[in-house]
Amino acid sequence: MIRYCQLCGSDASFIVPLGDSLPRHVCGTCGHIHYENPRLVVGCVAEWEGKILLCRRAIEPQRGFWTLPAGFMENGETTAEGAFRETLEESGARVTIDAPFAMISIAHINQVHLFYRGRLISPDYCAGEESLEVALLSPEEIPWQDLAFRSVSLCLERYLADRARGDFAFHETELRPPKHAVVNHPADSESAS
Amino acid sequence: MIRYCQLCGSDASFIVPLGDSLPRHVCGTCGHIHYENPRLVVGCVAEWEGKILLCRRAIEPQRGFWTLPAGFMENGETTAEGAFRETLEESGARVTIDAPFAMISIAHINQVHLFYRGRLISPDYCAGEESLEVALLSPEEIPWQDLAFRSVSLCLERYLADRARGDFAFHETELRPPKHAVVNHPADSESAS
Repeated sequence: MIRYCQLCGSDASFIVPLGDSLPRHVCGTCGHIHYENPRLVVGCVAEWEGKILLCRRAIEPQRGFWTLPAGFMENGETTAEGAFRETLEESGARVTIDAPFAMISIAHINQVHLFYRGRLISPDYCAGEESLEVALLSPEEIPWQDLAFRSVSLCLERYLADRARGDFAFHETELRPPKHAVVNHPADSESAS
Repeated sequence: MIRYCQLCGSDASFIVPLGDSLPRHVCGTCGHIHYENPRLVVGCVAEWEGKILLCRRAIEPQRGFWTLPAGFMENGETTAEGAFRETLEESGARVTIDAPFAMISIAHINQVHLFYRGRLISPDYCAGEESLEVALLSPEEIPWQDLAFRSVSLCLERYLADRARGDFAFHETELRPPKHAVVNHPADSESAS
């Protein structure tokens, strides 16, 4: 919740700026408008000899659950560069980033998750700071009940279906809030921050 | 430039938080980290009877130049909903949003431009507040020298090439900073804000 102007430190009000249609946090002194927009989470489904690279999370949310390497895109990088960087940071693996594979809007948490297809350059990996362990898993070994996020499950399902069919499409879809609370239901959010 | 914490109003310092690898604006009092991430611009190439919907901008940057309807994605919407909304706001046209067509990373301005293919539901349109005029233009009528943004030129070129070929692909690419300053060179940014 924005209370103060990040430029001048004065009080900010939540009002509709002139010519706008939505309320924003606007500084009462300098007039600066604090826009808040959805964030991109970028990652990849990386293969080595038919196995898929997964990381077990060392951080909340969903600590202990498995995920595809992915994280918030940073300023100054392209989506593909972000996917490469996140994969390296979380799994220690260097990948060739291929085509975009899945783009999933998750409107209720203001995120868009974008996964590329990728290939490990070599079978070298190690758990980064945000991972408890990293593994190359065959489709039969994927811990479906212990995946961290719904977007990861969705992406892996589509990926394996496309791979079995021998033709990779680009999948654009969305996730709405889960209708029923389920114990250990995978969260949607990559991070609370 | 962030100088004050938006939560408590204290001074913020530009430092690398513990466990992070990049500097962020961090509050010296409450510790809040102000992340800044790339923003998504969403829009569409909308057709009616072979003609394409273009808007002449009434606002800076690039006032007076032509653009595809597009703008910053808002919290609480999907990418497709954003493309629909922006098209309606800028051109008054209601469109059916089809498949994603082009995703263009523009790292030096921290933006990703995402264009869908779309179809007008009826040939009704009118200039929104941010447009001087709106028009349905045939390919021969497109004012290539007066397009507002490089991403718009790139998207339209690919779109017309795909259409001529009878097969629409999904195009993922990037734009780097222009090497030479050119008078009236279309800017990259959808908006300074």
